[in-house]
Amino acid sequence: MATLTNTRKVRIEWGDCDPMGIVFFPRYLAMFDDCTAYLFERALGITKFRMMQVYDFAGFPLVDVRARFLLPSRFGDDVEIESSVAEFRRASFVVQHRLRKAHELAVECSETRVWIRRHPDDRNEMQSQPVPLEVKERFGVA
Amino acid sequence: MATLTNTRKVRIEWGDCDPMGIVFFPRYLAMFDDCTAYLFERALGITKFRMMQVYDFAGFPLVDVRARFLLPSRFGDDVEIESSVAEFRRASFVVQHRLRKAHELAVECSETRVWIRRHPDDRNEMQSQPVPLEVKERFGVA
Amino acid sequence: MATLTNTRKVRIEWGDCDPMGIVFFPRYLAMFDDCTAYLFERALGITKFRMMQVYDFAGFPLVDVRARFLLPSRFGDDVEIESSVAEFRRASFVVQHRLRKAHELAVECSETRVWIRRHPDDRNEMQSQPVPLEVKERFGVA
Amino acid sequence: MATLTNTRKVRIEWGDCDPMGIVFFPRYLAMFDDCTAYLFERALGITKFRMMQVYDFAGFPLVDVRARFLLPSRFGDDVEIESSVAEFRRASFVVQHRLRKAHELAVECSETRVWIRRHPDDRNEMQSQPVPLEVKERFGVA
Repeated sequence: MATLTNTRKVRIEWGDCDPMGIVFFPRYLAMFDDCTAYLFERALGITKFRMMQVYDFAGFPLVDVRARFLLPSRFGDDVEIESSVAEFRRASFVVQHRLRKAHELAVECSETRVWIRRHPDDRNEMQSQPVPLEVKERFGVA
Repeated sequence: MATLTNTRKVRIEWGDCDPMGIVFFPRYLAMFDDCTAYLFERALGITKFRMMQVYDFAGFPLVDVRARFLLPSRFGDDVEIESSVAEFRRASFVVQHRLRKAHELAVECSETRVWIRRHPDDRNEMQSQPVPLEVKERFGVA
Repeated sequence: MATLTNTRKVRIEWGDCDPMGIVFFPRYLAMFDDCTAYLFERALGITKFRMMQVYDFAGFPLVDVRARFLLPSRFGDDVEIESSVAEFRRASFVVQHRLRKAHELAVECSETRVWIRRHPDDRNEMQSQPVPLEVKERFGVA
Repeated sequence: MATLTNTRKVRIEWGDCDPMGIVFFPRYLAMFDDCTAYLFERALGITKFRMMQVYDFAGFPLVDVRARFLLPSRFGDDVEIESSVAEFRRASFVVQHRLRKAHELAVECSETRVWIRRHPDDRNEMQSQPVPLEVKERFGVA
């Protein structure tokens, strides 16, 4: 089981918030998407942009996402997002995010993503493929 | 069980899409949020904006969301989103969205939302409260 | 001078609005970007996605944008956006958008865009090039 | 003339970028909106959220924006945004942003904003009013 964790401080911005003054929930999911990229950057030592040049990799689109919203956040709040890979499967993996506000759990999210590459015969077609062993090793997975 | 359904045609726009050319998934959730508002507009005959004036209502924030992404969509695609309330609970309800591309199910989403009003003693505080009976009746729920 | 005009009705959504309850201004610019795509779709009879397949075309990124905000819009408002090409230059063109709310001018925007193609020797490099004559003709420009 | 400047490092994220792999331009304007809030936070020592509690202030919506895009940025790029108030007028002010990529000017933006408060007799109505003297003083304006 992977135990590598990345933590990011994020300021909730005016433009993240809706007419109730709280985060418009799709914005949380965009923040979590950023956090997944940062988690891999931390594990591999390169940005997602470089990953696309170094690995046979075109992205890790979602196949499933689930989030629970426990406490609202408003603009001006400083929150902390802790991200880790909960599980590597054959060609997919599960990322977990926990967003805390003043140490209280405010949002919990679980993303199932697929490792994708461009089809060698047609660059416009995508296909899933096993997460490279080297990538899993960087996460401490045997 | 509520059976009122609202269907909306949506064009996937350039700005909805990521560097892979497919919808950046938080954008789907923003589309579904719009669709929930349209569903209530259809049921009640008034916009969400008017609902805030007519009912003791400040919004219906999410407490839980789950989505499955079965097929990607790209800019220029015309998709159809079918939305309905799957269940009314005491102070919450579940909305289901099905996004189809050329009649094939592409995304499925389930939102659990809470009916919220401003606290009578402090307009900055929100509190959940039972969905008004009149609202449920408009959805065909006894 | 091009005179072809496209008009679109747009509903202002909850997620377009900020804690003041009015449109978060970058959302207007995303709407205008959509409208530019619709304007070309109207002129050429094909979507922006198809344009990329039919023409030697990779997009029309902005080099300059200017907008004036005269009246605020709030969620639930139905507005109308009228778009046209004000001028074709050598490798660029100027699009004008006028957003009206109940027939009153609310936002005015002018975008200068460059016609871009992928470099024939390096698909990752972009280069500007003259707008195809056929495209200009469809806009009624000699 | 105000000379107080705030500089922020920003990572261009995957979700900021379009199918060409470069920043979808409305996202730049959202970044600049954040930067204006940070500039005032730096000048006043409090967040925009606190400003609304401390001052008779409901926001500083735009009346005019202009941006020039000189160089594209792509996801994974680290850019730097330098922001300052170029001018205080009676009830409005002009903010300038310069976004640099590897020390090269990539985007330039000028925002004209109005200082707004809620109407004392109707909290749903907004009205512009002179920027408080104390605020201007914090920017070094006599």
